[in-house]
Amino acid sequence: MTDKLIIFDTTLRDGEQSPGASMTRDEKLRIARQLERLKVDVIEAGFAASSNGDFECVQAIANVIKDSTICSLSRANDRDIARAAEALKGAASGRIHTFIATSPLHMEKKLRMTPDEVFEQARLAVRFARNQMGNVEFSAEDGYRSEIDFLARVCEAVINEGATTINIPDTVGYAIPELYGQFLKTLREKVPNSDKAVWSVHCHNDLGMAVANSLAGVKIGGARQIECTINGLGERAGNCSLEEIVMAVKTRRDYFGLDVGIDTSQIVPASRMVSQTTGFVVQPNKAVVGANAFAHASGIHQDGVLKARDTYEIMRAEDVGWSANKIVLGKLSGRNAFKQRLQELGVVLESEGEIMAAFAKFKELADRKSEIFDEDILALVSDESVTAEKEQYGFVSLSQHSETGEMPHAQIVFTVDGREVRGESDGNGPVDASLKAIESHVKSGAEMVLYSVNAISGSTESQGEVTVRLQNSGRVVNGVGADPDIVVASAKAYLSALNKLHSKADRVAAQG
Amino acid sequence: MTDKLIIFDTTLRDGEQSPGASMTRDEKLRIARQLERLKVDVIEAGFAASSNGDFECVQAIANVIKDSTICSLSRANDRDIARAAEALKGAASGRIHTFIATSPLHMEKKLRMTPDEVFEQARLAVRFARNQMGNVEFSAEDGYRSEIDFLARVCEAVINEGATTINIPDTVGYAIPELYGQFLKTLREKVPNSDKAVWSVHCHNDLGMAVANSLAGVKIGGARQIECTINGLGERAGNCSLEEIVMAVKTRRDYFGLDVGIDTSQIVPASRMVSQTTGFVVQPNKAVVGANAFAHASGIHQDGVLKARDTYEIMRAEDVGWSANKIVLGKLSGRNAFKQRLQELGVVLESEGEIMAAFAKFKELADRKSEIFDEDILALVSDESVTAEKEQYGFVSLSQHSETGEMPHAQIVFTVDGREVRGESDGNGPVDASLKAIESHVKSGAEMVLYSVNAISGSTESQGEVTVRLQNSGRVVNGVGADPDIVVASAKAYLSALNKLHSKADRVAAQG
Repeated sequence: MTDKLIIFDTTLRDGEQSPGASMTRDEKLRIARQLERLKVDVIEAGFAASSNGDFECVQAIANVIKDSTICSLSRANDRDIARAAEALKGAASGRIHTFIATSPLHMEKKLRMTPDEVFEQARLAVRFARNQMGNVEFSAEDGYRSEIDFLARVCEAVINEGATTINIPDTVGYAIPELYGQFLKTLREKVPNSDKAVWSVHCHNDLGMAVANSLAGVKIGGARQIECTINGLGERAGNCSLEEIVMAVKTRRDYFGLDVGIDTSQIVPASRMVSQTTGFVVQPNKAVVGANAFAHASGIHQDGVLKARDTYEIMRAEDVGWSANKIVLGKLSGRNAFKQRLQELGVVLESEGEIMAAFAKFKELADRKSEIFDEDILALVSDESVTAEKEQYGFVSLSQHSETGEMPHAQIVFTVDGREVRGESDGNGPVDASLKAIESHVKSGAEMVLYSVNAISGSTESQGEVTVRLQNSGRVVNGVGADPDIVVASAKAYLSALNKLHSKADRVAAQG
Repeated sequence: MTDKLIIFDTTLRDGEQSPGASMTRDEKLRIARQLERLKVDVIEAGFAASSNGDFECVQAIANVIKDSTICSLSRANDRDIARAAEALKGAASGRIHTFIATSPLHMEKKLRMTPDEVFEQARLAVRFARNQMGNVEFSAEDGYRSEIDFLARVCEAVINEGATTINIPDTVGYAIPELYGQFLKTLREKVPNSDKAVWSVHCHNDLGMAVANSLAGVKIGGARQIECTINGLGERAGNCSLEEIVMAVKTRRDYFGLDVGIDTSQIVPASRMVSQTTGFVVQPNKAVVGANAFAHASGIHQDGVLKARDTYEIMRAEDVGWSANKIVLGKLSGRNAFKQRLQELGVVLESEGEIMAAFAKFKELADRKSEIFDEDILALVSDESVTAEKEQYGFVSLSQHSETGEMPHAQIVFTVDGREVRGESDGNGPVDASLKAIESHVKSGAEMVLYSVNAISGSTESQGEVTVRLQNSGRVVNGVGADPDIVVASAKAYLSALNKLHSKADRVAAQG
């Protein structure tokens, strides 16, 4: 018999904390559904006390997802914990995840508390959380840089109070596999009641070793939960990549001897969904989910691969959900076929109105493009205007022209609270002119910090998907727009970002 | 006294082997100069025997670079080795790197040779190489999956023949840090003359552990050379990232106790140059060189960072070459200022004609854009039409229009061998129409496998840089074009890709 390794996904909490990766409620729900299909054990859905928006996201996900445990982060205080518990009320299986920093540096400089005060607050927080819910995780922020005897004392106390999972993060990505594994091993040996909890690792990738550190925490340190994100999304250099962890444990089962419950065929769809939603590209040479991860270029390699697949392949592309682009739908496809394909892709639109809107867009696209790929459909529904959230700005039409030797010029018609307005402008290029045409009317004053384009199926015939990241008064939002015309897609993305800027409230964010 | 860790960069050989990452001679030279500024110890410049083009690249780099050792790969046969030696003649310090596979799987399925035959061929190849050059590296391809006693016998024999460096690659990215380190340690203990050579590691990133594996090879296994690439470029999930290795060894000097000679302030410029040249994006959450690597989003973190930098930062952004965008030049900057800035950026244009062409482009850009950033200048010179290589196709002018409800339309004028031609076409969007307008005349039949856009300084006011990857008859090429007008940049990129498709010959590629 082998042990089970618990996969705790924090794409929607720690991942979403990346500058520019913030998501709407609908986007989070869509990703949560994909994580459920991926069969992750625990989904950290957010940090309920940080804002009303985050509370609603956690609540919505808790109400909908049934196969994964839903978790909310909370600081180690009663108010945060009560908010988390309230948001999780509808969950089939819920978990409160409370944390406090235990390293000398963090206690002194950030918390301005003595170790004894931290010890006491941790204990009381876990006690309070256990009164709300049976499943409680405690995290010692910056745990790896903590004084080990103090940390052991904290862990022992919170386990006594009923914590069921103990997480020791490498918050700043400073660890080395061997050292981190040994640290965890020694720590557990120092905690008399260590067998009463599941031990967990949470590693950041600042030195490129999050995956190896996590696995050393498991193999050497005896952890049985890994906290990770799709595509390694997360602050700074990000978190441990779910896809790499899972495939390493599966591929090297001879060494790890652990089972994971993940449906690996859902990995690539999950990666694409997260990348498209956040606008964070996945580099081609990213392990498992990068476009080149299974591509072999060199003559010698190709020859080797033909002679025996094992010579260069340790995993199979199809096992992680890579498959050829499938032509799924065309001009003549009906509403039911479209609806069914959406379901297969894990997209659930909430109302008939939304399905109608998406189908109308699909028909419009099918008129212009003979082959509709899965990516096109995903782009079409991630195009904000399909979703039901109330929008201030909406795209109507665009006309633009550029010619060598003249200033590019654009005229745009869009709605503001349902009323049509017109804007026009010159610009450095047609995209610049179009966005300036919008700004000529809106005057948001937002600064553009990122502009990126993905041709969804690799060629310019396919839809272009544009991500625009705007910053205003300290808030950063992403807007996504899709259209076969890259200039139109850019205008849609800009309007979508303006909508988010308009609707998003500030909130507190948290621990790494 | 501490040991020196040798940094062996193979961006130009193993990195360039990635599908779609092939580079021209001028591009390779530019990167080699940046690697020299980065102070890498060894630059693997190519695989001289694989094609005449590769031979010329190795030769050109060997003739120009003086501070780094220049290395050429070669299979374990006299012809390959002689070609490598010839290409390296002009090098201030040259190295021949010869390899043969030693794993049962590779020997049987790929080489179809017995172990004794492989043993003999390795020995003879190193003997031949040593007669050409004093600095010889031997690699046992798929070394980590080799039978250890056989591998030890091969290593002993090639050291006896004079190999000065012995490299044990994890060719398929299958290793785990602890196991790989132990493998290398045991292997070295089995080789009686192991102290006569420097041991080297070369790890692939298929399971996301290339960096940790390499470092375990050093710490546990006693290796003193790491083979790596900028941005972790390389086949499939790529190679070990130079930037991560270097910063891990520097940041955790307490653990590794090793010196590296790298000038870390050149890391980010090197990363950008490689990314811009190959069109391989660096994801925002990439360690060290990703756009977010040093960005902190969450309120709690920001607070912590303000209170004490060390709470969340283990490295300083400025140490790896991140600096605010600097406005370096504008409309009024003269030719000398431009030339000097090019030099500071590590760009060396070969002839006065090239400098003139680049300066003309700079002036044209300055007319349209008030602030010219370093990125703009790099984009401008990586725009193929600046370089001196003979081109079949050249951009002249473009006119395009799109309007909601109508088919986008484009008219283009470009040169074919110096003669102006016109093309026009409708398309799904203005970019599609423009590229179809080119194809309407050229009829290359090439398939577009990638289309990507980077707004170079983050906003649409800046230049857009477009990468187009074309595939034809099994060859894959990248074209890059830059212009404030994204449609024009796309047309330039397409023409640049067509030029490469026209000029590049097939060649043999090699070992991972």
